[in-house]
Amino acid sequence: QLRDAVAASFGSDELRGLRVLVSAGPTYEDLDPVRFIGNRSSGKMGFAIAAAAVRAGAEVTLVAGPVHLATPAGVARRIDVRSTVQMQAAIYAEAARADIFVSAAAVGDYRPQEVAPHKIKKQAGEALSLALQENPDIIAGLGRQRQHPFLVGFAAETRDVARYARDKLARKGLDMIAANRVGEGLGFDMADNALSLFWADGGLDLPQGPKCELAWQLVQQIAHRYRLTRATGAVAVDSPA
Amino acid sequence: QLRDAVAASFGSDELRGLRVLVSAGPTYEDLDPVRFIGNRSSGKMGFAIAAAAVRAGAEVTLVAGPVHLATPAGVARRIDVRSTVQMQAAIYAEAARADIFVSAAAVGDYRPQEVAPHKIKKQAGEALSLALQENPDIIAGLGRQRQHPFLVGFAAETRDVARYARDKLARKGLDMIAANRVGEGLGFDMADNALSLFWADGGLDLPQGPKCELAWQLVQQIAHRYRLTRATGAVAVDSPA
Repeated sequence: QLRDAVAASFGSDELRGLRVLVSAGPTYEDLDPVRFIGNRSSGKMGFAIAAAAVRAGAEVTLVAGPVHLATPAGVARRIDVRSTVQMQAAIYAEAARADIFVSAAAVGDYRPQEVAPHKIKKQAGEALSLALQENPDIIAGLGRQRQHPFLVGFAAETRDVARYARDKLARKGLDMIAANRVGEGLGFDMADNALSLFWADGGLDLPQGPKCELAWQLVQQIAHRYRLTRATGAVAVDSPA
Repeated sequence: QLRDAVAASFGSDELRGLRVLVSAGPTYEDLDPVRFIGNRSSGKMGFAIAAAAVRAGAEVTLVAGPVHLATPAGVARRIDVRSTVQMQAAIYAEAARADIFVSAAAVGDYRPQEVAPHKIKKQAGEALSLALQENPDIIAGLGRQRQHPFLVGFAAETRDVARYARDKLARKGLDMIAANRVGEGLGFDMADNALSLFWADGGLDLPQGPKCELAWQLVQQIAHRYRLTRATGAVAVDSPA
């Protein structure tokens, strides 16, 4: 009966009526007006997830770090940011009205303690030491809030993927985490990827494939887990009355 | 007479018969498999210079850092690199057969002393200090060689542009330097730019304009200065006999 009620309210448009917030791409942390610390995220996975969520009927807001990608058709709003602090401000402003947040951005963990207002001149023969400070953890911050969207995190790891992913899931209060192994022809800047999904009491490996296909399968799983754990409206229909 | 001889041998194809090597884009220095230190160069200016040199009749080799740009039509060869050390190897291999080298790449001054083989894990609450070492100065290294191409450097500065540019010209043994002011709607990632050219006994300001137009004017000036200082064949025609 629950199943029927859910099917009736969602139809084949699994995310119809839901607001999905997706972050994508890297963040860049400026050292001076010229130099920055970045990471290898191309944004392709996040943009593919935004496109898949549109196909599943959601109203999609996309927050993008510095990428060279066109906005997928049907995305309701795109907000471009550069640094982690800028991304945090955009996400926190949007999260209040989002039902689901998929954090596909590769957020920089650290930023320089100081940003030089002018280009740092090279001092011949001298080594340089760069003092970094921790960036805010955007999704963990949401996970600590009493009310927050269904939270889907990512873990890009070069080893011990499952262990780091399960640890992140619990520590940050996420509803689901998608772990991918980067390097060796997978992950950053590659068209293909492979994802392992984890949630508190289960998990699922998605087969290796193009990012657009993986994104579609991921969105199906997010919709399914969202319905099971968060779709209180649908549950109410099923309650004895 | 010199002027006529030069005009006759070059025609309107100012760089016909010459090999021009152009470097473009940023270099990225990896901290670990995920993170890197980069800079804001888009590569547009270098690619525009390569295209202009092709239009002026040169055989052009383009060495490019990580950029999102298509190779200009007519470029004989493109070599893609990531780090400064990789760029140095490509440039030094090509410079021996080049008549002119235009160093439009924004080469990273520093790289990490160590590159971590696996992703560096964040240690909650801890600051991080990054030890950097100086990168080789590619164009200065060429300037110290007994025989080298006609060397055109770039100086991207946020202040004191002329002073830094003239200092670089002399210190690195360049034939010409093109200085641009970055920031405030100019320079990196912008279509427009403004260049000031300096050589040992003179200089010239090119008016602000689109990078493709500036590149064309720069190539004209390079061809002119090259003829005056390096085209020994043409000078021989003019010698009394």
